Amino acid sequence: MGMRTAVAGASGYAGGELLRLLAAHPELDVVVAQADSRAGEPVTAVHPNLVTYAGQTLAPSDPALLEDADVVFLALPHGASAAIAATLRPDQLVVDLGADFRLQDAAAWERFYRLPHAGTWVYGMPELAGQRDLIAGARRIANPGCYPTSVTLALAPLLAAGLVETDDIVVVAASGTSGAGRKAATNLLGSEVMGDLSPYKIGGAHQHTPEITQGLSLAAGTRVSVGFTPLLAPMPRGILATCTAKLKPGVDTAALRAALGKAYTDEPFVHLLDEGQMPHTAATFGANSVHVQAAADPDSGRAVVVSAIDNLGKGAAGQALQNANIALGLPETLGLSAIGVAP
Amino acid sequence: MGMRTAVAGASGYAGGELLRLLAAHPELDVVVAQADSRAGEPVTAVHPNLVTYAGQTLAPSDPALLEDADVVFLALPHGASAAIAATLRPDQLVVDLGADFRLQDAAAWERFYRLPHAGTWVYGMPELAGQRDLIAGARRIANPGCYPTSVTLALAPLLAAGLVETDDIVVVAASGTSGAGRKAATNLLGSEVMGDLSPYKIGGAHQHTPEITQGLSLAAGTRVSVGFTPLLAPMPRGILATCTAKLKPGVDTAALRAALGKAYTDEPFVHLLDEGQMPHTAATFGANSVHVQAAADPDSGRAVVVSAIDNLGKGAAGQALQNANIALGLPETLGLSAIGVAP
Amino acid sequence: MGMRTAVAGASGYAGGELLRLLAAHPELDVVVAQADSRAGEPVTAVHPNLVTYAGQTLAPSDPALLEDADVVFLALPHGASAAIAATLRPDQLVVDLGADFRLQDAAAWERFYRLPHAGTWVYGMPELAGQRDLIAGARRIANPGCYPTSVTLALAPLLAAGLVETDDIVVVAASGTSGAGRKAATNLLGSEVMGDLSPYKIGGAHQHTPEITQGLSLAAGTRVSVGFTPLLAPMPRGILATCTAKLKPGVDTAALRAALGKAYTDEPFVHLLDEGQMPHTAATFGANSVHVQAAADPDSGRAVVVSAIDNLGKGAAGQALQNANIALGLPETLGLSAIGVAP
Amino acid sequence: MGMRTAVAGASGYAGGELLRLLAAHPELDVVVAQADSRAGEPVTAVHPNLVTYAGQTLAPSDPALLEDADVVFLALPHGASAAIAATLRPDQLVVDLGADFRLQDAAAWERFYRLPHAGTWVYGMPELAGQRDLIAGARRIANPGCYPTSVTLALAPLLAAGLVETDDIVVVAASGTSGAGRKAATNLLGSEVMGDLSPYKIGGAHQHTPEITQGLSLAAGTRVSVGFTPLLAPMPRGILATCTAKLKPGVDTAALRAALGKAYTDEPFVHLLDEGQMPHTAATFGANSVHVQAAADPDSGRAVVVSAIDNLGKGAAGQALQNANIALGLPETLGLSAIGVAP
Repeated sequence: MGMRTAVAGASGYAGGELLRLLAAHPELDVVVAQADSRAGEPVTAVHPNLVTYAGQTLAPSDPALLEDADVVFLALPHGASAAIAATLRPDQLVVDLGADFRLQDAAAWERFYRLPHAGTWVYGMPELAGQRDLIAGARRIANPGCYPTSVTLALAPLLAAGLVETDDIVVVAASGTSGAGRKAATNLLGSEVMGDLSPYKIGGAHQHTPEITQGLSLAAGTRVSVGFTPLLAPMPRGILATCTAKLKPGVDTAALRAALGKAYTDEPFVHLLDEGQMPHTAATFGANSVHVQAAADPDSGRAVVVSAIDNLGKGAAGQALQNANIALGLPETLGLSAIGVAP
Repeated sequence: MGMRTAVAGASGYAGGELLRLLAAHPELDVVVAQADSRAGEPVTAVHPNLVTYAGQTLAPSDPALLEDADVVFLALPHGASAAIAATLRPDQLVVDLGADFRLQDAAAWERFYRLPHAGTWVYGMPELAGQRDLIAGARRIANPGCYPTSVTLALAPLLAAGLVETDDIVVVAASGTSGAGRKAATNLLGSEVMGDLSPYKIGGAHQHTPEITQGLSLAAGTRVSVGFTPLLAPMPRGILATCTAKLKPGVDTAALRAALGKAYTDEPFVHLLDEGQMPHTAATFGANSVHVQAAADPDSGRAVVVSAIDNLGKGAAGQALQNANIALGLPETLGLSAIGVAP
Repeated sequence: MGMRTAVAGASGYAGGELLRLLAAHPELDVVVAQADSRAGEPVTAVHPNLVTYAGQTLAPSDPALLEDADVVFLALPHGASAAIAATLRPDQLVVDLGADFRLQDAAAWERFYRLPHAGTWVYGMPELAGQRDLIAGARRIANPGCYPTSVTLALAPLLAAGLVETDDIVVVAASGTSGAGRKAATNLLGSEVMGDLSPYKIGGAHQHTPEITQGLSLAAGTRVSVGFTPLLAPMPRGILATCTAKLKPGVDTAALRAALGKAYTDEPFVHLLDEGQMPHTAATFGANSVHVQAAADPDSGRAVVVSAIDNLGKGAAGQALQNANIALGLPETLGLSAIGVAP
Repeated sequence: MGMRTAVAGASGYAGGELLRLLAAHPELDVVVAQADSRAGEPVTAVHPNLVTYAGQTLAPSDPALLEDADVVFLALPHGASAAIAATLRPDQLVVDLGADFRLQDAAAWERFYRLPHAGTWVYGMPELAGQRDLIAGARRIANPGCYPTSVTLALAPLLAAGLVETDDIVVVAASGTSGAGRKAATNLLGSEVMGDLSPYKIGGAHQHTPEITQGLSLAAGTRVSVGFTPLLAPMPRGILATCTAKLKPGVDTAALRAALGKAYTDEPFVHLLDEGQMPHTAATFGANSVHVQAAADPDSGRAVVVSAIDNLGKGAAGQALQNANIALGLPETLGLSAIGVAP
């Protein structure tokens, strides 16, 4: 009998991925899966892949139902976690997949989310220097956003090692459509996204920009400047982040790769690819992995680091489970796969 | 220390899926992964998702390298298994994912494959009545084809129960592109298959037709007649089989569903969906599952049964591992998931 | 200065395709494009491809705005055309892309659409024997459905020539997602349809069944029986219809092809492919073409005819324009392409 | 009777698109379509969409067959045009879709293509200041590359107007798979590209980098520095280029949009989108259009310009035909569509 586990927001894509991962986790048992508009429906009607949940239905989003849980995952729209979190006991482990508690800068939060700032929890990115220990001791964890995960893990080691400049980082990252959530909207219909690539916020308007800046600044030890453009790509899952920063003098490809290799050599989920290999989002499908490759471009004077993740895996549910494992003192990789399902 | 396991044909899609599944299997250890043209390359160069194989290379296709294996999976082009099988010891468990040993009718084999018939092994479809026991005692198992798996499991219970006629079964089944293998061919390029649906053999010309007929005839207890049209669908994985047969008098949807429910109620991998739910190939992605739904059409007088599988899962590597588990006396579901990765 | 042309329902996919085709038509000028919920928006905000409509906005769906039009295309949800049609003058050419006026059998209409039957207009399938002359003299034309177009043109010549039986026709047809319309629904989101193939109505429940039966019965000269299963395919456009019927004694592939060749030799938009070539939906993308191939399967005793169309082209807007050209005495191919945009 | 037109390299994707466009061009008649390995095959066997070419076969790649042509389009692999061009008469109009004659800098050509430089022809980008007049008087035109088209048209007006810095331009552009050509390669198989996004050359290694630099330097009137990362996107066609450059002091979104609007107000094929609209590759499918949007990011101090084209349209065959129209004194838009086929 494992720990009693609750998932709030179980009808969305991240919630469904949590249910998928938890079904195979040997120490966490799902005792309640809450949804809002789809409460009362069978889990398999909402997530046809989750056949082992046959016979179970989605519960209403009543905070009282979370009382008995040892572990609570919140996979709710941004802005909805704070009220629920306020009802939970301090001894319950809470991992929030939303943005509510990620930012230290209340003004940045309010500027991008246009809601009052609810506070700041431990930032759950274990591979970021210093974070794993904080996570191990936490009962409240803010799970990072999908874009910030892909970008921060790509650039942090180079910034920490002083190999690149901090003042003009340029990132273009493309996400699969599940990153836009499960809301019924004509611009997300299959008819319109298949065969289509498009930016959706340009000029620094995406709400993940301050979170990216925060993570990279933490790694750099100084405030960095980032220009970030998000794209919507015609695939259900995956993020590919192309991250560039100005090279410090004398830095070449080998130096970039050495810094990444050193940072991630013992990490089970971050993989510096062999020279000549390129990150493929498809290779991370369903996994908690990050694939990274880097090169110095002497002509333009920029480092180029490209990372691939599954936005629902390491970008959401996978990382949330990794954080829970750490906080609960379980093996960090329990119930998680480093291998994607491909082709 | 688990059983020593070999995969021949490890550079193809089914071979890669075997390596993915075996990496998570607690009792089977991959000791050799053979390839032909790609021997000597790192596993991760050939299968970028298989990051836990980092540092391992593909071995040449030398039968001597299979000698020490307890379990051998052959994932080779049709016609290539017989020569290798002849070099293996009777006590080694051999699961052949190719077509070489599936058919009892040598003439049918030679008509469709235009090669001499090598023999007939135990047909590895555990859910087909009587087969599980045969598999349990076998050391040579012919793993079923992807289309035959999807079609046979859809119709066998109805034929066994005498609910449909045997003389005019009509099947249209569409496969994702990985079903066509990993050969470099312009008609399989992404540019040409994305956005495209096409038949590729019409008029009963597909080589899986006799295997479908064999399996359904076994279930019916008499020779059935099947017309089979295969389509290529714009997705990497998945088979959706639409199977129709003439209804016996008085048979309605409830009777069809009852027969399927009875046949599969205790099966861990075959799921009769709730009424109103439809099979989706995406729901089986990466899983060993079969999703089935049925309806009687009183106007046309036909039963319609639709099944969805992952052609590389239950249609190839998943079922092969399921067969190995049974033959080795292990829990049948070990290392296999009933839950697909979706969306 | 061309004829004054109106499009009602211009914000949907078929309406948008009409606007696309009309922009290149030398004799028809769009004077009003009506939408309902999106009235007042720029055309390019609703259809970003229609850049030559820059500066024009969608009009509200007020019947009075159609008064001055010489030609009216109705691209509305099923059941909405009748009320509007009642307000139009007899001398206006009206082509209805909806189902309202397609069926002669009122009972069949009411059974599948659950609305009162509004009447029957000339059925606008020019390649069906006898229809072209009727269309030429009509001012009210019911444009065929997408599935019926693909199925009827595949089988009609074989039924007319008496090469196949009429009593047990089995059809499985898969449509791209635009066939489901532009309604915001989670099951049509890109995240859920990419990589997925699924049936959506089984057991003869699709509302196009009676229209298919009507068209084939007209061709056969007797009432036919059809079992029809529709699938949703992971592509924006295209229908692939696999149509089978029992062969009359002695009929072989050559006889099937001869009948199709004879029927379509002078047709600009229906193409019997060379032997060995298979229909590809992608080859018809954006075109008004139908690609057809046929084979006899002596083992199963069935004729297999496969057709490919663009569901928005020959399956909707293209055929509507073809009908308008005929009714207006213009060259039938004016403003229409037989060549699809591929790859 | 139109001008006699030849297409060399007609079996590739760009060659096929030329044949598609030329079929609808009122003044150019295709008299010979050459291929190499597929010579002798019917056009429709190689390009199933080109049904109006039924009965015609691909000719061998014999230069003598080009002698009678008034207009010759070369759609050959890079490095193959020079030898053929040498056999053509000065009065023949030759448009080369390959890279052979695009670069003025022989050293750059030889560095990236590792072949001797064959010379420099008029650069066929009509919307680049000064080029249209040069094209009008030319008989030898180097058609721009797909990436350079998308990037140059996005940034040239801003550089020409002095709104952005020239020293640190960063471009990330993603192409559909047809941009990689029609070569049979496993990494381009549908199974591997669907659902996958990947960079393919990082660190400035792509051969289009010097062409991008050349075009932007021409616009800026000084040598610019560009870092360019190309991605492969899971769609058959389309390029989306995200182009950033450091803002000059005081430049805002309105200034960027004003410069683009002024540059392209009279251009039939370059469309500055309304504020709030984003470029979508799908909206340009099959068209010769460029869709552009821009924003200033005050936080990062960069201008972001995103452009979308069809890599086979404005990025290859469409622009080639536009150039031919100009050089032949025909209306520039003849046989070309500004409207893409969508959804």
